[in-house]
Amino acid sequence: MITFQRQNSSCTKLAFRQFGDPLKVLKLEEETVSAPKADEVLVKFIVAPVNPADINLIQGVYPVKVELPAVGGIEGVGEVIEVGANVNNFKPGDWIIPNAEGFGTWRTLGVFKSESLFKVPNDLNAVEVAGLSSNPSTAYRMLRDFVNLKPGDVVIQNGGNSACGQNVIQICRINNLISVNVVRDRPEINGLKSYLESLGADYVLTEEELRKTDIFKTNKVPKPNLALNCVGGRSATEISRHLADHGTMVTYGGMSREPVTIPTSAFIFKDICFRGYWMTRWTRLNKQSEERQKMFDDLCEYMRSGKLKAPEHELIRLDNFPEAIMKTSSVQGYIGCKYLLDLQKSN
Amino acid sequence: MITFQRQNSSCTKLAFRQFGDPLKVLKLEEETVSAPKADEVLVKFIVAPVNPADINLIQGVYPVKVELPAVGGIEGVGEVIEVGANVNNFKPGDWIIPNAEGFGTWRTLGVFKSESLFKVPNDLNAVEVAGLSSNPSTAYRMLRDFVNLKPGDVVIQNGGNSACGQNVIQICRINNLISVNVVRDRPEINGLKSYLESLGADYVLTEEELRKTDIFKTNKVPKPNLALNCVGGRSATEISRHLADHGTMVTYGGMSREPVTIPTSAFIFKDICFRGYWMTRWTRLNKQSEERQKMFDDLCEYMRSGKLKAPEHELIRLDNFPEAIMKTSSVQGYIGCKYLLDLQKSN
Repeated sequence: MITFQRQNSSCTKLAFRQFGDPLKVLKLEEETVSAPKADEVLVKFIVAPVNPADINLIQGVYPVKVELPAVGGIEGVGEVIEVGANVNNFKPGDWIIPNAEGFGTWRTLGVFKSESLFKVPNDLNAVEVAGLSSNPSTAYRMLRDFVNLKPGDVVIQNGGNSACGQNVIQICRINNLISVNVVRDRPEINGLKSYLESLGADYVLTEEELRKTDIFKTNKVPKPNLALNCVGGRSATEISRHLADHGTMVTYGGMSREPVTIPTSAFIFKDICFRGYWMTRWTRLNKQSEERQKMFDDLCEYMRSGKLKAPEHELIRLDNFPEAIMKTSSVQGYIGCKYLLDLQKSN
Repeated sequence: MITFQRQNSSCTKLAFRQFGDPLKVLKLEEETVSAPKADEVLVKFIVAPVNPADINLIQGVYPVKVELPAVGGIEGVGEVIEVGANVNNFKPGDWIIPNAEGFGTWRTLGVFKSESLFKVPNDLNAVEVAGLSSNPSTAYRMLRDFVNLKPGDVVIQNGGNSACGQNVIQICRINNLISVNVVRDRPEINGLKSYLESLGADYVLTEEELRKTDIFKTNKVPKPNLALNCVGGRSATEISRHLADHGTMVTYGGMSREPVTIPTSAFIFKDICFRGYWMTRWTRLNKQSEERQKMFDDLCEYMRSGKLKAPEHELIRLDNFPEAIMKTSSVQGYIGCKYLLDLQKSN
């Protein structure tokens, strides 16, 4: 497995020396790799997603701050190449994901303190593992931490075709939860519905269909106890309207850029609770927790069994990074497509 | 104390036989009082508030439903005149408040099952006790059930001059909580500020002043952990903006008739929780609880010691009920004035 020769290699990294438009401030830089010190690990990166949060971080508008100069990329997966003398918990060939905020994964190689790395199984699809700590983890926690759901309970979400939404659909199916998934209408709506149903979606409705639906009134489907909102605006109001009394809506995104508007009666007479979720906060509070290890174990097992698939995605070479930035900034198309930097091909 | 002769008396009650505009459907009716049966209590009513909820109930738009024909009035205080043979927990001279929904307090006399009554001290101001189960209880619970507040913590509320808001101010002061109270600007603003400060308000700000205030930024005042909203619309958004991270906003009214609008970042990055409170729900769940008795004991003790005063109010004779309905429907003036039916004078 160790075919790599550190001594003569240089690293390519996508760095920025000031905050701003990623297309302007991000530059490819070369540096020579140094040998890992006693508590360090040399990592060769495989793939790293380009997420909206990465773009916001580089713009300087994300609540996670990094010191400049910095390397882009919050998450990704790499392979351990060499470990320092005192490192016992990693060995060459292991796969790792970042265990620190604003890590800087958009590079081919890097040397890191072992405590900033988290070991993951190396027998999985690298694209799936690369996103482990964001979308699958967000979906996993939102289905677990807000409402005590039992098999047969119903979850409603908007942005059902988003990267996180697809994880929600699959984790609902794994846990025998019924998912009602709302998407925007579009020309290829039937293709999208079929795709999400193939992932395990019980119902896929356009926003227009949701307003007229009788799936709840006819009692075929119990009222949802949990609503997951990544859109805001009218879409958020609509999904919250279908919640059962005492239900909870969790907001984890605002793709419409419109705020969440809630009628007073939803608070007073329906006792709906409106919360927010930010994966970064949970990770800060649970960095070393058993619960975090259990979550990653569960998610990796779902991936290994084929029950949790990555969303449609496209690998882009590191030197073509502007394409990945532009495509992530203007996500379109009928499935929430993810763009990842392929850090081996660019090497 | 027993100067009343049941045998020859009739009762005047303000009844409605259909739901609709209270000014049209409410009629004064007379009936002869029957002797209380074994498990019943004969009650002479003293005063009964006219609340917005009463009006909504008569309109048929309140989530508490009553069977028709019905008598108006959800709350009020009365004196026990005579008890049935099996009634041991009440005696003549005791004061009672309703222990049932949609009770029908707008009457001079009535016979009720003893289980539908709740004994209260008879040495207090009847106007204060008459409202015990709504505004003071709502304020008491909202300050206790959502956030674990300790002395020195800060509570922000809008509608600071409302009947409930005035209770919040006083119960904050009793518990050494700092209250920041937001009111609408008005010509008599200085008089209102002085009045609320005399009740114990630490800060009284107009909505305009709140937007420009530096009381939080200069750290003289810690950020509030709890916001109480009875207005909605822009006012609700503004008070929620000042909450500390992980704070909670509780909505218990919507006087502006506008919904609550929340930016996505308040959910995700500030982890603000938005809940609702409805006193009726709490009472349903806690009708016989020790916590309810403790709450009434505490509130009556606050009233007895002069630390919890009724808001400015006006007593209106039962036969002048249209005036009470009209004034309650269009509350104006610089202090949240309450209107109550005086059920002794009309007898």
